[in-house]
Amino acid sequence: MKSLPLLVGLSALTAASSVFAWDYVLLDTDKAAQNQQITSQQLGVKTDKPFTITMRTLHGGRQEGVSIIDIDNGTMKLSVVPTRGMNVLQASVGDVRMGWDSPVKDVVNPAFIELNGRGGLGWLEGFNELVTRCGYEWVGHPGMDNGELLTLHGRAANIPASKVTLQIDEKPPYAIRLKGELKEQAFKKVDFSVQTELVTEPGSTSFSLNDTLTNNGDYPKEYQALYHSNFSTPFLEQGARFEAPVKQVSPFNEKAKGDLGDWQTYRAPTPDYDETVYNIVPYGDAKGDTLTVLHNKAGSLGVSVGFNTKQLPVFSLWKNTDTKGQGYVTGLEPGTSFSYNRRFQRPLNLVPTIAPKEQRQFQISYSLLADKGAVDKALGQVKHIQDGRETEVRKEPLVDLTKEQ
Amino acid sequence: MKSLPLLVGLSALTAASSVFAWDYVLLDTDKAAQNQQITSQQLGVKTDKPFTITMRTLHGGRQEGVSIIDIDNGTMKLSVVPTRGMNVLQASVGDVRMGWDSPVKDVVNPAFIELNGRGGLGWLEGFNELVTRCGYEWVGHPGMDNGELLTLHGRAANIPASKVTLQIDEKPPYAIRLKGELKEQAFKKVDFSVQTELVTEPGSTSFSLNDTLTNNGDYPKEYQALYHSNFSTPFLEQGARFEAPVKQVSPFNEKAKGDLGDWQTYRAPTPDYDETVYNIVPYGDAKGDTLTVLHNKAGSLGVSVGFNTKQLPVFSLWKNTDTKGQGYVTGLEPGTSFSYNRRFQRPLNLVPTIAPKEQRQFQISYSLLADKGAVDKALGQVKHIQDGRETEVRKEPLVDLTKEQ
Amino acid sequence: MKSLPLLVGLSALTAASSVFAWDYVLLDTDKAAQNQQITSQQLGVKTDKPFTITMRTLHGGRQEGVSIIDIDNGTMKLSVVPTRGMNVLQASVGDVRMGWDSPVKDVVNPAFIELNGRGGLGWLEGFNELVTRCGYEWVGHPGMDNGELLTLHGRAANIPASKVTLQIDEKPPYAIRLKGELKEQAFKKVDFSVQTELVTEPGSTSFSLNDTLTNNGDYPKEYQALYHSNFSTPFLEQGARFEAPVKQVSPFNEKAKGDLGDWQTYRAPTPDYDETVYNIVPYGDAKGDTLTVLHNKAGSLGVSVGFNTKQLPVFSLWKNTDTKGQGYVTGLEPGTSFSYNRRFQRPLNLVPTIAPKEQRQFQISYSLLADKGAVDKALGQVKHIQDGRETEVRKEPLVDLTKEQ
Repeated sequence: MKSLPLLVGLSALTAASSVFAWDYVLLDTDKAAQNQQITSQQLGVKTDKPFTITMRTLHGGRQEGVSIIDIDNGTMKLSVVPTRGMNVLQASVGDVRMGWDSPVKDVVNPAFIELNGRGGLGWLEGFNELVTRCGYEWVGHPGMDNGELLTLHGRAANIPASKVTLQIDEKPPYAIRLKGELKEQAFKKVDFSVQTELVTEPGSTSFSLNDTLTNNGDYPKEYQALYHSNFSTPFLEQGARFEAPVKQVSPFNEKAKGDLGDWQTYRAPTPDYDETVYNIVPYGDAKGDTLTVLHNKAGSLGVSVGFNTKQLPVFSLWKNTDTKGQGYVTGLEPGTSFSYNRRFQRPLNLVPTIAPKEQRQFQISYSLLADKGAVDKALGQVKHIQDGRETEVRKEPLVDLTKEQ
Repeated sequence: MKSLPLLVGLSALTAASSVFAWDYVLLDTDKAAQNQQITSQQLGVKTDKPFTITMRTLHGGRQEGVSIIDIDNGTMKLSVVPTRGMNVLQASVGDVRMGWDSPVKDVVNPAFIELNGRGGLGWLEGFNELVTRCGYEWVGHPGMDNGELLTLHGRAANIPASKVTLQIDEKPPYAIRLKGELKEQAFKKVDFSVQTELVTEPGSTSFSLNDTLTNNGDYPKEYQALYHSNFSTPFLEQGARFEAPVKQVSPFNEKAKGDLGDWQTYRAPTPDYDETVYNIVPYGDAKGDTLTVLHNKAGSLGVSVGFNTKQLPVFSLWKNTDTKGQGYVTGLEPGTSFSYNRRFQRPLNLVPTIAPKEQRQFQISYSLLADKGAVDKALGQVKHIQDGRETEVRKEPLVDLTKEQ
Repeated sequence: MKSLPLLVGLSALTAASSVFAWDYVLLDTDKAAQNQQITSQQLGVKTDKPFTITMRTLHGGRQEGVSIIDIDNGTMKLSVVPTRGMNVLQASVGDVRMGWDSPVKDVVNPAFIELNGRGGLGWLEGFNELVTRCGYEWVGHPGMDNGELLTLHGRAANIPASKVTLQIDEKPPYAIRLKGELKEQAFKKVDFSVQTELVTEPGSTSFSLNDTLTNNGDYPKEYQALYHSNFSTPFLEQGARFEAPVKQVSPFNEKAKGDLGDWQTYRAPTPDYDETVYNIVPYGDAKGDTLTVLHNKAGSLGVSVGFNTKQLPVFSLWKNTDTKGQGYVTGLEPGTSFSYNRRFQRPLNLVPTIAPKEQRQFQISYSLLADKGAVDKALGQVKHIQDGRETEVRKEPLVDLTKEQ
């Protein structure tokens, strides 16, 4: 571990957990979040893509006390919210912004949210991120299951991270790793922890999530995970397309049946459209790796979301192409499960179980496709994974929600 | 904008939004609430009513972290609670206090309140203000509407204010304006903001609220507003009277029918009285302006609450003349609506709609009537507005609550 | 009051409320919690058991902003949580720890808990203390009563303490008293305050709680109290025993009927055991004082919990001998009531009433029984109180829960 110049506001160095990295504890039981900055220059890193990591606190309204960690890797700027499940608020490269404009403008402190409010839709009072973690006890629409109201998409997004650490590799490419632990615990109910990790590299236009769910309890437990990854303009527009290696696609509900023929293309902002959702079973390659792509109409700009189908076997495509003010946004959502209430997903075998002390990893990579070359390359990968295999377009939803009580 | 002496703890001056005023940002995204004081002396204002504005933070219990802004205009002392919807906690002139003694002694941080608790009555765990904002998505008693539990009187009182600013006119009468923005936002549900403003002048025994509701969304939305303005002794006492220009008065429910004959006078603190409520449709003058008055038995002390019937067409008179410990208090409550659950008010045409990007203004003025002359003058205004027009005393409630499920 | 050396971080001394004690205000409306330490050495106390009282704040996760007060009396170390109802988190003497290992690892700030979540079981998301206060409006299992969902075990454990003070006697034995006030208030519903007190002495292996509930309201109110006192290893183990002077014991429910024959002994950690609960009516001595004992199999280590049956007439023995990870713990729970929902306890005459301005005291003493001599002495006291009186072993639960709706 290199010696560091003494910096005002810089965290005390902890013993390096990896021998060849700088390690900082940004938040811990005995360490309050504080305004601070760590730069490549301070570390003595010579790079043409100087990077900066900044921690700050928001004030006023329902965002009082919320911590934000901004990572500027020299090319891409990322904002992570420790107070909200280590969610990724947004990412941008120059003028191009990954993320969307929710009517919710505050980065809301979970202390001010009643998830059980609005009939279990309280989650909507804080939803505005690029990547919102859903899970891990359950995901999906609110509703009763086993005599308990399951609130929309679980609690993860509203769990403040416990210990938050930053690790920067001492050697090129100087990978930047931000880790934060989420504890999802209730006596007799659940004892999960999720070690979240976000990784990027100086100069990169990509970042990855690398989460590890642990069942600390002594009993097998049902779990669900869904990575609600949300994009808007400039990717989303009339004629924008979604591409993926698809084994099966089906409409989420009656509403989505009507637009099934156009499920891969997007509308312009459309008053009263609300949303349609398509349930996708993706193909992966031999290792299970798969890639999904959203690109603009011209095919000159896009984003890809990569994941592994052994970890996250299904995928929800959320097309919320309503007006800009209402939220013009599409969600690319790899998951263990679709967005039905948990009770509907058991019969679909989409409520997996995690044994005591077992772990599950969820790795998702996000890349900006900055030009036509990058988009075409990603589409080529999609085609390569599909490998000529058939796509089943199922006309009826997997769940008959008209029978819901 | 005048130059200011440098003051410890004084907010950095922001660019003046109005040319002839001092502007301070007291709270903002990047500016935490802090103890500070601004005085007429610091501003170099020569006045025989020197004024002071103080910001402080409360600690302990459920009021941990609550901000209070005290305005002493030289004659009247006002306390405003940014953390609770910019509610007016109390106002006093010398020994005379506008406000009341609730069993709730803490100024409760909304973080500790579950509005959905107690069957939707969680709001009662924080209710103790002189003026409590009710709204703006809904007001009224808890109950189901459109499949959702609407909690008592909406969320406004439990929304912490975002940007809070103080503006003091540079010229006599040196009006003091305290502004705070409330964001009432939930994805797919609502996108309201309310720019609240409280105005007073040095030496005045009055203050006004001047709120602007904006529907930032792209769709028309139902809204409701009610200004729960609560008074006790020395105004409220046995034989105290309420006067207003009344077009129609009716009992809120069966209980209130019994006391309809005495609806304008008050009882002494009365064990087991609980409350009676009367629904009033007030007359306004040609411009819609109207005035309501509460005065003591002798007619030597009172308060007036003025508003405009085009903005707030109805009025609830809440007579909670139970024991002092239970809360001896009366509410003068101008509103768009009465206090029934929203589902009962649609048939009464008391659930208005606000179009996209439209605004609604709600202006209410509160004045101390410090002697018989002031009371008589206000009663003269009431009579002038009534202008001999008839009052319908309706014996049956507008809503048959006995049919409620 | 003695003069004190000036100390960095030491609270300003307040006027002594008792003439012969040092008094410190640790938390109050105008006094934020802060890191600080008070030691016998600072006070000039010559003792072979030097004591230290420390206040600190936790950060990260759902414990952000939680205050902890650690009392090291020279022999026993106690941790009290002002932010959570002045609960006693744990106590230890050397390696022997009173308390247990809950799956809930954070000391959870009530701001992050929805008591109404999980069908009224939200309380379980914060439950991990040695002594958790239950009450005072109600205790017991969640369920509807009078049209309202009563959440598990009431609100006390999730009410942050208001004014917190520390008092140290100026004379031997230099008793250390930590007081904190809980306000349980809601307009029209309840106006309780609870003055909590924890007392210990330098060098002691005991501590006492001395709580005073006051009904500040003008009406008689139902109330309930239960002191959920939770122990695990090294006291709890296979063959560990519970002893008390018992007038009547009965199984809480059908499940507990099966193990009634072994109600006084404990199992090793047992997968899928979950819990059994026994309802006990204890005998007291002539003054009502009684003593309950938990000791290990060898009878060489134990704890005693003493209380007065006039204050707390019943007792729940909670045997949660499930696996260590699930929570291997037993609760010794003196109370006004058992753990049924309040509606089931009225017919049992276990929902007492407190008149306006009346007070109720609840005094409970906790002692480590460090060796066989101490255990035997305590068992002797139990026998002395039983005094040969009969024990009724009732085979059927007092409440027929199979009839629950």
